[in-house]
Amino acid sequence: MEKREQLYEGKAKKVYATDQPELLVVSYKDDATAFNGLKKGTIEGKGVINNHMSNRLMAYLEKKGIPTHFVEELNERETLVKKVTILPLEVIIRNLAAGSFSKRYGVEEGTAFSMPTIEFSYKNDDLGDPLLNSYHAVAMGLATQEEIETIKKYAFAINEELKAFWADCGVILVDFKLEFGKTADGTVILADEISPDTCRLWDSQTKEKLDKDRFRRDLGGTEDAYAEVMRRLEEHLR
Amino acid sequence: MEKREQLYEGKAKKVYATDQPELLVVSYKDDATAFNGLKKGTIEGKGVINNHMSNRLMAYLEKKGIPTHFVEELNERETLVKKVTILPLEVIIRNLAAGSFSKRYGVEEGTAFSMPTIEFSYKNDDLGDPLLNSYHAVAMGLATQEEIETIKKYAFAINEELKAFWADCGVILVDFKLEFGKTADGTVILADEISPDTCRLWDSQTKEKLDKDRFRRDLGGTEDAYAEVMRRLEEHLR
Ligand SMILES: Nc1ncnc2c1ncn2[C@@H]1O[C@H](COP(=O)(O)OP(=O)(O)O)[C@@H](O)[C@H]1O
Ligand SMILES: Nc1ncnc2c1ncn2[C@@H]1O[C@H](COP(=O)(O)OP(=O)(O)O)[C@@H](O)[C@H]1O
Ligand SMILES: [Mg+2]
Ligand SMILES: [Mg+2]
Repeated sequence: MEKREQLYEGKAKKVYATDQPELLVVSYKDDATAFNGLKKGTIEGKGVINNHMSNRLMAYLEKKGIPTHFVEELNERETLVKKVTILPLEVIIRNLAAGSFSKRYGVEEGTAFSMPTIEFSYKNDDLGDPLLNSYHAVAMGLATQEEIETIKKYAFAINEELKAFWADCGVILVDFKLEFGKTADGTVILADEISPDTCRLWDSQTKEKLDKDRFRRDLGGTEDAYAEVMRRLEEHLR
Repeated sequence: MEKREQLYEGKAKKVYATDQPELLVVSYKDDATAFNGLKKGTIEGKGVINNHMSNRLMAYLEKKGIPTHFVEELNERETLVKKVTILPLEVIIRNLAAGSFSKRYGVEEGTAFSMPTIEFSYKNDDLGDPLLNSYHAVAMGLATQEEIETIKKYAFAINEELKAFWADCGVILVDFKLEFGKTADGTVILADEISPDTCRLWDSQTKEKLDKDRFRRDLGGTEDAYAEVMRRLEEHLR
Protein backbone atom coordinates (compact mmCIF):
# COMPACT_ATOMS: atom_id res chain seq x y z
CA MET A 1 0.00 0.00 0.00
CA GLU A 2 1.32 3.40 -1.00
CA LYS A 3 0.24 6.79 0.36
CA ARG A 4 -0.66 9.24 -2.42
CA GLU A 5 -1.94 12.83 -2.59
CA GLN A 6 -3.69 14.67 0.25
CA LEU A 7 -7.44 14.74 -0.43
CA TYR A 8 -8.65 16.84 2.44
CA GLU A 9 -7.45 18.62 5.56
CA GLY A 10 -10.01 18.75 8.37
CA LYS A 11 -9.79 20.39 11.77
CA ALA A 12 -8.16 17.37 13.41
CA LYS A 13 -6.96 15.08 10.64
CA LYS A 14 -5.56 15.01 7.14
CA VAL A 15 -6.86 12.46 4.66
CA TYR A 16 -4.73 10.95 1.89
CA ALA A 17 -5.51 8.75 -1.09
CA THR A 18 -3.66 5.47 -1.49
CA ASP A 19 -2.89 3.26 -4.46
CA GLN A 20 -6.07 1.34 -3.64
CA PRO A 21 -9.30 3.19 -4.44
CA GLU A 22 -11.17 1.73 -1.46
CA LEU A 23 -8.53 2.69 1.13
CA LEU A 24 -7.42 5.99 2.66
CA VAL A 25 -4.75 7.09 5.09
CA VAL A 26 -5.83 9.42 7.90
CA SER A 27 -3.17 11.39 9.70
CA TYR A 28 -3.96 12.78 13.16
CA LYS A 29 -2.87 16.35 13.99
CA ASP A 30 -2.33 18.05 17.35
CA ASP A 31 -4.63 20.91 16.23
CA ALA A 32 -7.59 21.51 18.50
CA THR A 33 -10.66 23.59 17.71
CA ALA A 34 -13.87 24.27 19.60
CA PHE A 35 -17.13 26.19 19.24
CA ASN A 36 -17.35 25.51 15.52
CA GLY A 37 -13.77 26.61 14.88
CA LEU A 38 -14.00 29.90 16.82
CA LYS A 39 -11.44 28.70 19.36
CA LYS A 40 -8.17 27.31 18.03
CA GLY A 41 -5.14 25.80 19.73
CA THR A 42 -2.78 22.87 20.03
CA ILE A 43 -2.91 19.90 22.36
CA GLU A 44 0.64 18.54 22.35
CA GLY A 45 0.72 14.82 21.52
CA LYS A 46 -3.06 14.62 20.95
CA GLY A 47 -2.71 13.25 17.41
CA VAL A 48 -0.68 10.28 18.64
CA ILE A 49 -3.13 9.52 21.45
CA ASN A 50 -6.28 9.95 19.37
CA ASN A 51 -4.92 7.80 16.56
CA HIS A 52 -3.98 5.02 18.91
CA MET A 53 -7.12 5.24 21.08
CA SER A 54 -9.51 5.38 18.14
CA ASN A 55 -7.86 2.33 16.59
CA ARG A 56 -7.93 0.36 19.84
CA LEU A 57 -11.61 1.15 20.37
CA MET A 58 -12.62 0.44 16.77
CA ALA A 59 -10.79 -2.89 16.84
CA TYR A 60 -12.62 -3.65 20.10
CA LEU A 61 -15.99 -2.73 18.56
CA GLU A 62 -15.27 -4.86 15.47
CA LYS A 63 -14.83 -7.84 17.79
CA LYS A 64 -18.25 -7.01 19.25
CA GLY A 65 -19.86 -7.08 15.81
CA ILE A 66 -19.84 -3.39 14.85
CA PRO A 67 -18.44 -2.74 11.35
CA THR A 68 -15.87 0.09 11.34
CA HIS A 69 -13.53 1.76 8.85
CA PHE A 70 -10.41 0.63 10.77
CA VAL A 71 -7.93 -1.44 8.75
CA GLU A 72 -4.41 -1.04 10.14
CA GLU A 73 -2.33 1.36 12.19
CA LEU A 74 0.59 2.48 10.02
CA ASN A 75 2.57 4.56 12.50
CA GLU A 76 1.94 6.70 15.56
CA ARG A 77 -0.14 9.28 13.71
CA GLU A 78 -1.33 7.44 10.62
CA THR A 79 -3.94 4.77 10.04
CA LEU A 80 -5.22 2.92 7.01
CA VAL A 81 -9.03 3.05 6.84
CA LYS A 82 -11.78 1.98 4.47
CA LYS A 83 -12.84 4.91 2.31
CA VAL A 84 -16.46 5.86 2.84
CA THR A 85 -18.85 8.58 1.80
CA ILE A 86 -19.48 10.23 5.14
CA LEU A 87 -23.19 10.70 5.91
CA PRO A 88 -23.44 14.42 6.77
CA LEU A 89 -24.81 13.71 10.24
CA GLU A 90 -23.08 13.97 13.58
CA VAL A 91 -24.57 11.24 15.72
CA ILE A 92 -24.54 12.07 19.42
CA ILE A 93 -25.34 9.67 22.24
CA ARG A 94 -25.79 11.02 25.75
CA ASN A 95 -25.87 9.12 29.03
CA LEU A 96 -25.65 12.20 31.26
CA ALA A 97 -26.59 15.80 30.53
CA ALA A 98 -23.60 18.00 29.67
CA GLY A 99 -22.38 20.73 27.34
CA SER A 100 -24.79 22.04 24.73
CA PHE A 101 -27.59 19.82 26.04
CA SER A 102 -27.38 21.29 29.54
CA LYS A 103 -27.26 24.80 28.18
CA ARG A 104 -30.03 24.39 25.63
CA TYR A 105 -32.55 22.68 27.93
CA GLY A 106 -31.54 24.08 31.32
CA VAL A 107 -30.63 20.65 32.70
CA GLU A 108 -27.76 20.59 35.20
CA GLU A 109 -24.53 19.04 33.93
CA GLY A 110 -24.16 15.51 35.28
CA THR A 111 -27.90 14.75 35.44
CA ALA A 112 -28.23 11.08 34.48
CA PHE A 113 -30.90 9.99 31.99
CA SER A 114 -32.92 6.86 32.71
CA MET A 115 -32.26 5.86 29.08
CA PRO A 116 -29.51 7.05 26.73
CA THR A 117 -30.60 9.64 24.15
CA ILE A 118 -29.55 9.86 20.53
CA GLU A 119 -29.57 13.00 18.42
CA PHE A 120 -28.38 14.05 15.00
CA SER A 121 -26.86 17.27 13.89
CA TYR A 122 -26.39 18.34 10.31
CA LYS A 123 -22.61 18.21 9.67
CA ASN A 124 -22.35 21.63 8.05
CA ASP A 125 -19.80 24.10 9.43
CA ASP A 126 -21.41 27.11 7.71
CA LEU A 127 -24.71 26.44 9.48
CA GLY A 128 -23.00 25.61 12.79
CA ASP A 129 -23.90 21.88 12.79
CA PRO A 130 -27.56 22.49 13.73
CA LEU A 131 -29.57 19.86 15.62
CA LEU A 132 -32.08 18.02 13.48
CA ASN A 133 -34.25 14.96 13.83
CA SER A 134 -34.57 11.89 11.61
CA TYR A 135 -37.61 13.32 9.76
CA HIS A 136 -35.56 16.38 8.80
CA ALA A 137 -32.58 14.25 7.78
CA VAL A 138 -34.73 12.13 5.48
CA ALA A 139 -36.67 15.14 4.11
CA MET A 140 -33.39 16.90 3.27
CA GLY A 141 -32.01 13.75 1.63
CA LEU A 142 -29.10 13.48 4.06
CA ALA A 143 -29.83 9.79 4.73
CA THR A 144 -32.55 7.26 4.03
CA GLN A 145 -34.91 5.98 6.70
CA GLU A 146 -33.12 2.59 6.59
CA GLU A 147 -29.71 4.23 7.02
CA ILE A 148 -31.05 6.16 10.01
CA GLU A 149 -32.35 2.94 11.57
CA THR A 150 -29.01 1.21 11.01
CA ILE A 151 -27.14 4.14 12.52
CA LYS A 152 -29.42 4.19 15.58
CA LYS A 153 -28.98 0.46 16.12
CA TYR A 154 -25.17 0.67 15.87
CA ALA A 155 -24.91 3.86 17.92
CA PHE A 156 -26.87 2.44 20.87
CA ALA A 157 -24.90 -0.84 20.65
CA ILE A 158 -21.61 1.11 20.59
CA ASN A 159 -22.78 3.03 23.64
CA GLU A 160 -23.42 -0.14 25.61
CA GLU A 161 -20.01 -1.56 24.67
CA LEU A 162 -18.06 1.64 25.34
CA LYS A 163 -19.94 2.50 28.55
CA ALA A 164 -18.94 -0.88 29.99
CA PHE A 165 -15.41 -0.63 28.59
CA TRP A 166 -14.78 2.81 30.09
CA ALA A 167 -16.43 1.85 33.38
CA ASP A 168 -13.78 -0.86 33.68
CA CYS A 169 -11.19 1.91 33.25
CA GLY A 170 -12.76 3.97 36.05
CA VAL A 171 -14.21 6.39 33.52
CA ILE A 172 -17.81 7.54 32.97
CA LEU A 173 -18.80 7.82 29.31
CA VAL A 174 -20.94 10.97 29.52
CA ASP A 175 -21.62 11.48 25.81
CA PHE A 176 -19.92 11.10 22.44
CA LYS A 177 -20.16 11.95 18.75
CA LEU A 178 -19.94 9.40 15.96
CA GLU A 179 -19.77 9.68 12.18
CA PHE A 180 -20.95 6.93 9.88
CA GLY A 181 -20.24 6.47 6.20
CA LYS A 182 -21.15 4.27 3.28
CA THR A 183 -18.69 2.05 1.46
CA ALA A 184 -18.89 1.72 -2.34
CA ASP A 185 -21.53 -1.03 -2.03
CA GLY A 186 -23.71 1.10 0.28
CA THR A 187 -22.85 -0.68 3.55
CA VAL A 188 -23.06 1.67 6.56
CA ILE A 189 -19.98 1.48 8.81
CA LEU A 190 -18.56 3.51 11.69
CA ALA A 191 -15.94 6.01 10.47
CA ASP A 192 -14.01 9.06 11.73
CA GLU A 193 -12.64 8.68 15.28
CA ILE A 194 -13.43 7.86 18.91
CA SER A 195 -11.20 9.87 21.21
CA PRO A 196 -11.21 12.44 24.01
CA ASP A 197 -11.88 14.97 21.21
CA THR A 198 -15.22 13.31 20.46
CA CYS A 199 -16.24 11.82 23.84
CA ARG A 200 -16.88 13.34 27.26
CA LEU A 201 -14.97 11.14 29.72
CA TRP A 202 -15.16 11.79 33.46
CA ASP A 203 -13.20 10.08 36.20
CA SER A 204 -15.73 7.78 37.91
CA GLN A 205 -14.60 8.77 41.43
CA THR A 206 -13.68 12.44 41.21
CA LYS A 207 -15.84 13.34 38.19
CA GLU A 208 -12.78 15.14 36.83
CA LYS A 209 -13.03 15.89 33.11
CA LEU A 210 -10.55 13.84 31.06
CA ASP A 211 -11.47 15.12 27.60
CA LYS A 212 -11.56 18.13 25.26
CA ASP A 213 -13.71 20.11 27.69
CA ARG A 214 -10.42 20.90 29.49
CA PHE A 215 -9.38 22.76 26.32
CA ARG A 216 -12.87 24.20 25.57
CA ARG A 217 -13.20 25.60 29.08
CA ASP A 218 -9.54 26.50 29.71
CA LEU A 219 -9.29 24.12 32.66
CA GLY A 220 -5.61 23.37 32.08
CA GLY A 221 -3.96 19.94 32.19
CA THR A 222 -5.42 18.91 28.84
CA GLU A 223 -2.34 16.95 27.74
CA ASP A 224 -2.20 15.12 31.09
CA ALA A 225 -5.90 14.22 30.87
CA TYR A 226 -5.52 12.73 27.38
CA ALA A 227 -2.45 10.78 28.53
CA GLU A 228 -4.30 9.54 31.62
CA VAL A 229 -7.30 8.08 29.72
CA MET A 230 -4.90 6.54 27.20
CA ARG A 231 -2.91 4.96 30.03
CA ARG A 232 -6.07 3.52 31.60
CA LEU A 233 -7.26 2.14 28.26
CA GLU A 234 -3.92 0.45 27.60
CA GLU A 235 -3.84 -1.00 31.10
CA HIS A 236 -7.37 -2.35 30.71
CA LEU A 237 -6.60 -3.96 27.35
CA ARG A 238 -3.36 -5.51 28.59
CA MET B 1 -71.98 26.86 33.05
CA GLU B 2 -70.56 29.88 34.85
CA LYS B 3 -67.27 31.63 34.08
CA ARG B 4 -65.11 32.07 37.19
CA GLU B 5 -61.68 33.56 37.96
CA GLN B 6 -58.91 34.10 35.40
CA LEU B 7 -56.32 31.35 35.77
CA TYR B 8 -53.73 32.47 33.29
CA GLU B 9 -53.04 35.12 30.69
CA GLY B 10 -50.92 33.94 27.77
CA LYS B 11 -49.59 35.86 24.80
CA ALA B 12 -52.75 35.34 22.70
CA LYS B 13 -55.46 34.09 25.07
CA LYS B 14 -56.78 34.35 28.61
CA VAL B 15 -57.90 31.23 30.40
CA TYR B 16 -60.71 31.19 32.99
CA ALA B 17 -61.98 28.56 35.41
CA THR B 18 -65.64 27.59 35.29
CA ASP B 19 -68.01 26.07 37.84
CA GLN B 20 -67.10 22.67 36.39
CA PRO B 21 -63.58 21.47 37.24
CA GLU B 22 -63.07 19.73 33.90
CA LEU B 23 -64.01 22.78 31.78
CA LEU B 24 -62.29 26.09 31.03
CA VAL B 25 -63.16 29.21 29.10
CA VAL B 26 -60.51 30.54 26.72
CA SER B 27 -60.81 34.14 25.58
CA TYR B 28 -58.97 35.19 22.41
CA LYS B 29 -57.13 38.53 22.39
CA ASP B 30 -55.98 40.72 19.49
CA ASP B 31 -52.44 40.79 20.95
CA ALA B 32 -49.76 39.52 18.61
CA THR B 33 -46.21 38.57 19.53
CA ALA B 34 -43.35 37.12 17.55
CA PHE B 35 -39.74 36.00 18.02
CA ASN B 36 -40.37 34.63 21.51
CA GLY B 37 -42.13 37.82 22.64
CA LEU B 38 -39.46 40.25 21.37
CA LYS B 39 -41.88 41.78 18.86
CA LYS B 40 -45.27 42.93 20.18
CA GLY B 41 -48.31 44.40 18.47
CA THR B 42 -52.01 44.15 17.80
CA ILE B 43 -53.85 42.53 14.93
CA GLU B 44 -57.30 44.14 14.97
CA GLY B 45 -60.07 41.54 15.04
CA LYS B 46 -57.63 38.61 15.26
CA GLY B 47 -59.16 37.23 18.46
CA VAL B 48 -62.58 36.93 16.84
CA ILE B 49 -61.19 35.22 13.74
CA ASN B 50 -58.86 32.86 15.59
CA ASN B 51 -61.58 31.82 18.03
CA HIS B 52 -64.01 31.07 15.26
CA MET B 53 -61.51 29.43 12.92
CA SER B 54 -59.99 27.24 15.61
CA ASN B 55 -63.43 26.06 16.67
CA ARG B 56 -64.54 25.31 13.11
CA LEU B 57 -61.36 23.34 12.44
CA MET B 58 -61.47 21.43 15.73
CA ALA B 59 -65.12 20.50 15.16
CA TYR B 60 -64.12 19.32 11.68
CA LEU B 61 -61.23 17.25 13.08
CA GLU B 62 -63.52 15.71 15.74
CA LYS B 63 -65.76 14.47 12.93
CA LYS B 64 -62.67 12.89 11.36
CA GLY B 65 -61.88 11.01 14.58
CA ILE B 66 -59.34 13.32 16.24
CA PRO B 67 -60.14 14.08 19.90
CA THR B 68 -59.90 17.80 20.69
CA HIS B 69 -60.55 20.11 23.64
CA PHE B 70 -63.37 21.95 21.81
CA VAL B 71 -66.73 21.93 23.58
CA GLU B 72 -68.77 24.99 22.61
CA GLU B 73 -68.34 28.49 21.25
CA LEU B 74 -69.75 30.90 23.83
CA ASN B 75 -69.43 34.20 21.99
CA GLU B 76 -67.22 35.78 19.37
CA ARG B 77 -64.06 35.68 21.51
CA GLU B 78 -64.81 32.98 24.07
CA THR B 79 -64.96 29.21 23.88
CA LEU B 80 -65.65 26.45 26.38
CA VAL B 81 -62.93 23.78 26.25
CA LYS B 82 -61.98 20.64 28.11
CA LYS B 83 -59.34 21.42 30.70
CA VAL B 84 -56.10 19.59 30.08
CA THR B 85 -52.59 19.50 31.44
CA ILE B 86 -50.69 20.81 28.44
CA LEU B 87 -47.72 18.64 27.48
CA PRO B 88 -44.81 21.13 27.35
CA LEU B 89 -44.07 20.35 23.72
CA GLU B 90 -44.79 22.42 20.65
CA VAL B 91 -45.54 19.95 17.89
CA ILE B 92 -44.65 21.26 14.44
CA ILE B 93 -45.58 19.64 11.16
CA ARG B 94 -43.99 20.91 7.95
CA ASN B 95 -45.02 20.22 4.36
CA LEU B 96 -42.78 22.89 2.81
CA ALA B 97 -39.62 24.49 4.16
CA ALA B 98 -40.21 27.93 5.69
CA GLY B 99 -39.31 30.18 8.61
CA SER B 100 -36.92 28.82 11.22
CA PHE B 101 -36.44 25.58 9.26
CA SER B 102 -35.25 27.42 6.15
CA LYS B 103 -32.93 29.59 8.17
CA ARG B 104 -31.53 26.82 10.35
CA TYR B 105 -30.80 24.35 7.57
CA GLY B 106 -30.21 26.68 4.63
CA VAL B 107 -33.17 25.30 2.65
CA GLU B 108 -34.99 27.80 0.44
CA GLU B 109 -38.46 28.81 1.65
CA GLY B 110 -41.11 26.97 -0.33
CA THR B 111 -39.04 23.82 -0.94
CA ALA B 112 -41.51 20.93 -0.77
CA PHE B 113 -40.65 17.80 1.23
CA SER B 114 -41.44 14.40 -0.27
CA MET B 115 -42.91 13.49 3.15
CA PRO B 116 -44.17 15.78 5.90
CA THR B 117 -41.78 16.23 8.84
CA ILE B 118 -42.66 16.41 12.51
CA GLU B 119 -40.59 18.10 15.19
CA PHE B 120 -40.95 18.98 18.84
CA SER B 121 -39.80 22.01 20.68
CA TYR B 122 -39.67 22.35 24.43
CA LYS B 123 -42.44 24.84 25.34
CA ASN B 124 -40.30 27.02 27.62
CA ASP B 125 -40.20 30.76 26.97
CA ASP B 126 -37.07 31.29 29.12
CA LEU B 127 -35.10 28.82 26.98
CA GLY B 128 -36.62 30.13 23.72
CA ASP B 129 -38.65 26.99 22.92
CA PRO B 130 -35.60 24.97 21.81
CA LEU B 131 -35.94 22.16 19.28
CA LEU B 132 -35.68 18.69 20.80
CA ASN B 133 -36.31 15.15 19.68
CA SER B 134 -38.48 12.44 21.21
CA TYR B 135 -35.52 10.86 23.04
CA HIS B 136 -34.82 14.18 24.75
CA ALA B 137 -38.50 14.69 25.58
CA VAL B 138 -38.73 11.27 27.24
CA ALA B 139 -35.34 11.63 29.00
CA MET B 140 -36.43 15.00 30.45
CA GLY B 141 -39.79 13.54 31.55
CA LEU B 142 -41.79 15.93 29.35
CA ALA B 143 -43.85 13.05 27.91
CA THR B 144 -43.83 9.28 27.86
CA GLN B 145 -42.88 7.26 24.79
CA GLU B 146 -46.56 6.24 24.40
CA GLU B 147 -47.72 9.87 24.58
CA ILE B 148 -45.15 10.79 21.92
CA GLU B 149 -46.40 7.99 19.66
CA THR B 150 -50.03 9.11 20.15
CA ILE B 151 -49.11 12.73 19.40
CA LYS B 152 -47.21 11.73 16.24
CA LYS B 153 -50.15 9.65 15.01
CA TYR B 154 -52.66 12.46 15.62
CA ALA B 155 -50.39 15.19 14.26
CA PHE B 156 -49.80 13.42 10.94
CA ALA B 157 -53.52 12.58 10.66
CA ILE B 158 -54.42 16.22 11.38
CA ASN B 159 -51.97 17.29 8.69
CA GLU B 160 -53.62 15.07 6.08
CA GLU B 161 -57.08 16.37 7.01
CA LEU B 162 -56.11 20.03 7.15
CA LYS B 163 -53.92 19.91 4.04
CA ALA B 164 -56.91 18.63 2.03
CA PHE B 165 -59.30 21.05 3.74
CA TRP B 166 -57.15 24.09 3.01
CA ALA B 167 -56.40 22.93 -0.53
CA ASP B 168 -60.18 23.07 -1.14
CA CYS B 169 -60.02 26.69 0.04
CA GLY B 170 -57.22 27.51 -2.42
CA VAL B 171 -54.69 27.59 0.42
CA ILE B 172 -51.42 25.69 0.88
CA LEU B 173 -50.85 24.45 4.43
CA VAL B 174 -47.09 25.09 4.67
CA ASP B 175 -46.56 24.21 8.33
CA PHE B 176 -48.31 24.50 11.69
CA LYS B 177 -47.83 24.18 15.44
CA LEU B 178 -50.05 22.07 17.68
CA GLU B 179 -50.29 21.63 21.44
CA PHE B 180 -51.63 18.50 23.05
CA GLY B 181 -52.76 17.96 26.61
CA LYS B 182 -53.93 15.25 28.95
CA THR B 183 -57.38 15.15 30.51
CA ALA B 184 -57.81 14.04 34.12
CA ASP B 185 -57.91 10.38 33.05
CA GLY B 186 -54.68 10.71 31.03
CA THR B 187 -56.27 10.78 27.57
CA VAL B 188 -54.19 12.80 25.08
CA ILE B 189 -56.28 15.31 23.09
CA LEU B 190 -55.57 18.25 20.80
CA ALA B 191 -55.72 21.56 22.70
CA ASP B 192 -54.76 25.23 22.23
CA GLU B 193 -55.68 26.67 18.81
CA ILE B 194 -55.41 26.25 15.04
CA SER B 195 -55.35 29.65 13.37
CA PRO B 196 -53.26 31.93 11.14
CA ASP B 197 -51.23 32.59 14.32
CA THR B 198 -50.16 28.96 14.45
CA CYS B 199 -50.24 27.90 10.76
CA ARG B 200 -48.41 29.12 7.68
CA LEU B 201 -51.09 29.49 5.00
CA TRP B 202 -50.17 30.53 1.47
CA ASP B 203 -52.53 31.32 -1.39
CA SER B 204 -52.27 28.30 -3.73
CA GLN B 205 -52.05 30.46 -6.86
CA THR B 206 -50.10 33.55 -5.87
CA LYS B 207 -48.20 32.00 -2.90
CA GLU B 208 -49.15 35.14 -0.97
CA LYS B 209 -48.75 34.74 2.79
CA LEU B 210 -52.11 34.71 4.60
CA ASP B 211 -50.84 34.26 8.16
CA LYS B 212 -48.85 35.74 11.02
CA ASP B 213 -45.72 36.01 8.86
CA ARG B 214 -47.30 39.25 7.53
CA PHE B 215 -46.97 40.61 11.07
CA ARG B 216 -43.59 38.96 11.82
CA ARG B 217 -42.04 40.35 8.62
CA ASP B 218 -43.90 43.70 8.49
CA LEU B 219 -45.52 42.85 5.16
CA GLY B 220 -48.68 44.87 5.87
CA GLY B 221 -52.24 43.74 5.23
CA THR B 222 -52.25 41.35 8.19
CA GLU B 223 -55.90 42.00 9.13
CA ASP B 224 -57.02 41.54 5.51
CA ALA B 225 -55.11 38.26 5.25
CA TYR B 226 -56.73 36.84 8.38
CA ALA B 227 -60.16 37.96 7.14
CA GLU B 228 -59.50 36.40 3.72
CA VAL B 229 -58.62 32.92 5.04
CA MET B 230 -61.60 33.08 7.39
CA ARG B 231 -63.87 34.00 4.47
CA ARG B 232 -62.57 31.08 2.40
CA LEU B 233 -62.99 28.66 5.28
CA GLU B 234 -66.60 29.77 5.88
CA GLU B 235 -67.40 29.55 2.18
CA HIS B 236 -65.93 26.04 1.99
CA LEU B 237 -67.90 24.86 5.03
CA ARG B 238 -71.17 26.37 3.77
N1 LIG C 1 -13.25 6.39 6.50
C1 LIG C 1 -13.39 7.65 6.04
N2 LIG C 1 -13.59 7.88 4.72
C2 LIG C 1 -13.73 9.16 4.25
N3 LIG C 1 -13.71 10.24 5.04
C3 LIG C 1 -13.54 10.07 6.37
C4 LIG C 1 -13.38 8.78 6.93
N4 LIG C 1 -13.25 8.91 8.28
C5 LIG C 1 -13.32 10.24 8.53
N5 LIG C 1 -13.50 10.95 7.41
C6 LIG C 1 -13.60 12.40 7.24
O1 LIG C 1 -12.31 12.96 7.30
C7 LIG C 1 -12.41 14.35 7.54
C8 LIG C 1 -11.27 14.83 8.38
O2 LIG C 1 -11.49 14.62 9.75
P1 LIG C 1 -11.52 15.86 10.76
O3 LIG C 1 -10.21 16.56 10.76
O4 LIG C 1 -12.03 15.31 12.05
O5 LIG C 1 -12.59 16.81 10.04
P2 LIG C 1 -13.62 17.90 10.59
O6 LIG C 1 -12.91 19.21 10.47
O7 LIG C 1 -14.81 17.78 9.67
O8 LIG C 1 -13.97 17.52 12.02
C9 LIG C 1 -13.82 14.57 8.09
O9 LIG C 1 -14.60 15.20 7.08
C10 LIG C 1 -14.32 13.16 8.33
O10 LIG C 1 -15.73 13.09 8.18
N1 LIG D 1 -57.66 22.98 26.88
C1 LIG D 1 -56.70 23.62 27.55
N2 LIG D 1 -56.52 23.39 28.89
C2 LIG D 1 -55.55 24.03 29.57
N3 LIG D 1 -54.72 24.94 29.04
C3 LIG D 1 -54.85 25.20 27.71
C4 LIG D 1 -55.85 24.57 26.92
N4 LIG D 1 -55.70 25.01 25.64
C5 LIG D 1 -54.69 25.89 25.64
N5 LIG D 1 -54.16 26.03 26.88
C6 LIG D 1 -53.05 26.90 27.31
O1 LIG D 1 -53.56 28.20 27.46
C7 LIG D 1 -52.44 29.10 27.52
C8 LIG D 1 -52.84 30.41 26.89
O2 LIG D 1 -52.71 30.39 25.49
P1 LIG D 1 -51.72 31.38 24.74
O3 LIG D 1 -52.12 32.80 25.01
O4 LIG D 1 -51.66 30.92 23.32
O5 LIG D 1 -50.37 31.11 25.55
P2 LIG D 1 -48.83 31.24 25.13
O6 LIG D 1 -48.38 32.58 25.58
O7 LIG D 1 -48.17 30.12 25.91
O8 LIG D 1 -48.75 31.01 23.62
C9 LIG D 1 -51.28 28.35 26.89
O9 LIG D 1 -50.36 28.02 27.93
C10 LIG D 1 -51.93 27.09 26.33
O10 LIG D 1 -51.00 26.01 26.36
MG1 LIG E 1 -13.75 15.82 13.07
MG1 LIG F 1 -49.99 30.21 22.28
